[in-house]
Amino acid sequence: MMKIAIAGFGALGSRVGIKLQKAGHEVTGIDGWPAHIAAINTKGLKVVNDAGESKRYFMPVVTPKEIHGTFDLIILLTKTPQLNQMLTDIAHIITPQTKLLVLSNGLGNIEVIQKHVDREQIYAGVTLWTSSLAAPGEIHVTGTGSIRLQAIGGGDAEDIITALNQGELNAELSRDVMTDIWRKAGINAVLNPLSVLLDASIAEFGTAGNQMELSLGILNEIKAVGEAVGIRVDVQDIMDTLAELLKPEVAGAHYPSMYQDIQGAKRTEIDFLNGYFAKLGAQHQISMPINSLITQLIHAKEDIVRVKQAKTQETFEL
Amino acid sequence: MMKIAIAGFGALGSRVGIKLQKAGHEVTGIDGWPAHIAAINTKGLKVVNDAGESKRYFMPVVTPKEIHGTFDLIILLTKTPQLNQMLTDIAHIITPQTKLLVLSNGLGNIEVIQKHVDREQIYAGVTLWTSSLAAPGEIHVTGTGSIRLQAIGGGDAEDIITALNQGELNAELSRDVMTDIWRKAGINAVLNPLSVLLDASIAEFGTAGNQMELSLGILNEIKAVGEAVGIRVDVQDIMDTLAELLKPEVAGAHYPSMYQDIQGAKRTEIDFLNGYFAKLGAQHQISMPINSLITQLIHAKEDIVRVKQAKTQETFEL
Repeated sequence: MMKIAIAGFGALGSRVGIKLQKAGHEVTGIDGWPAHIAAINTKGLKVVNDAGESKRYFMPVVTPKEIHGTFDLIILLTKTPQLNQMLTDIAHIITPQTKLLVLSNGLGNIEVIQKHVDREQIYAGVTLWTSSLAAPGEIHVTGTGSIRLQAIGGGDAEDIITALNQGELNAELSRDVMTDIWRKAGINAVLNPLSVLLDASIAEFGTAGNQMELSLGILNEIKAVGEAVGIRVDVQDIMDTLAELLKPEVAGAHYPSMYQDIQGAKRTEIDFLNGYFAKLGAQHQISMPINSLITQLIHAKEDIVRVKQAKTQETFEL
Repeated sequence: MMKIAIAGFGALGSRVGIKLQKAGHEVTGIDGWPAHIAAINTKGLKVVNDAGESKRYFMPVVTPKEIHGTFDLIILLTKTPQLNQMLTDIAHIITPQTKLLVLSNGLGNIEVIQKHVDREQIYAGVTLWTSSLAAPGEIHVTGTGSIRLQAIGGGDAEDIITALNQGELNAELSRDVMTDIWRKAGINAVLNPLSVLLDASIAEFGTAGNQMELSLGILNEIKAVGEAVGIRVDVQDIMDTLAELLKPEVAGAHYPSMYQDIQGAKRTEIDFLNGYFAKLGAQHQISMPINSLITQLIHAKEDIVRVKQAKTQETFEL
């Protein structure tokens, strides 16, 4: 059994954590949202399934400053913009033997982690498990998922895969996890910003006659920058997946996370998605006008929404 | 005095028509919207000014098929997508002596008109007069404007300028009307599509921190294609104008016409704005990725809005 910390104990971290704890691992959650931590520590984590049934699970959750001891495995599910701060805050629980498995979406995670630990300690993965946070201390889970992961330093990932599969997380070894990560990022680089700019759910985006042309423009640039850095981007494969996701019966009225971030007047992860590809392109003298423009438009949208929201909140006389 | 027809008797056509009729010209409106024609012919055109005062003016308005006789001057204010059809429908009132003055926004007008008359009959202008159509037969007018125009075939525009100025339309000769037209189109190519994609009024767009970067990207491409076809685009001058227009005290909560078209689930004029520049760029082997992407995004938005609206109207059981 392993001693496991989950840094970033949000919707997905909670789901993964509970499953690992049920398998007998010693799991601690690390998070920075006081209301969420308080809810779990006092009433347990409420998990609601598709049938509307709910169950409560108890698990220790602490802030980065409160955690102590050392860990065999730290699963990183912090959003990319906060990852560096999280690793700084939990430096005291990381030993040279600690393995760090990053499962967050967003690009550039490995570069950030390398600033804190040796490359041999880093494992990266991509997951199809999903979960949504309905309220502090309450997640809604649907379907099953899987995890594909690889040791970035070339080592062995077997013990991590075994631990995850004890928790029935359907983990398997990837021979080329960067391809898997870019594949997922490619899908997100289409669906996330376009849902914001077109004010459309996934199903609604599917009603645009030129959806394939728009998607191809974004993906062909990603393929070009991938070639420059040695990561294969199979555009046709991603397009096939998108076509599947955009089918009305599959897509429903679901909105990507970036759309939800904009609705909540939060900063998005665009700099770690289309913006990351654009920046990498600039470093390799590859023209990335489409991903650059999309990044700029999303930043403009972030500003506009925050000013709009600030104005609607000016409801009291000073 | 001149015998003048105004083809496209919408908000702006009505305002211009009334002013020319007041000056003593014999003016006939040509339009295709039955409710608007009926309202003007039965109750007169209701004109409301900034102070809320209103006055009714009577003027003959007919459909393209109903008009007869010949005219000295036809002022074209039909939207670009409908211009070719309008010229086909009114071919019987155009003689070799008829002058055609096009004042519509949108690019590609002159190419369309050339298919119907000699180049020597064509005059093109750009106007700062504005007006909005509040209801069939009712326009709201604000401020004053001006018109700059030029004979496209190299001839003399003095008699047209005299006629327009008898109607106090502040007309003057332009030495390079294509520069004026592209200047106005450049401003519209920024404000129109970005208001749609960012769901922002002009003033709200002004709150985006990267508004200048976004504007420059669009305008620099237009400048490049302008160089290829011999039209000077003064990017700095357009940026200065944009900066002025985006000031909160000037911009207010005003939305560009393209935003209103999208709200009304109408097709926009994007193909005669950013799409025109992109197409011209392709013809001259100039890369126009920003204007191309913006054109694609607006077309996607048109589709999505129309499907959304169709769904909300499915309120009755079949």
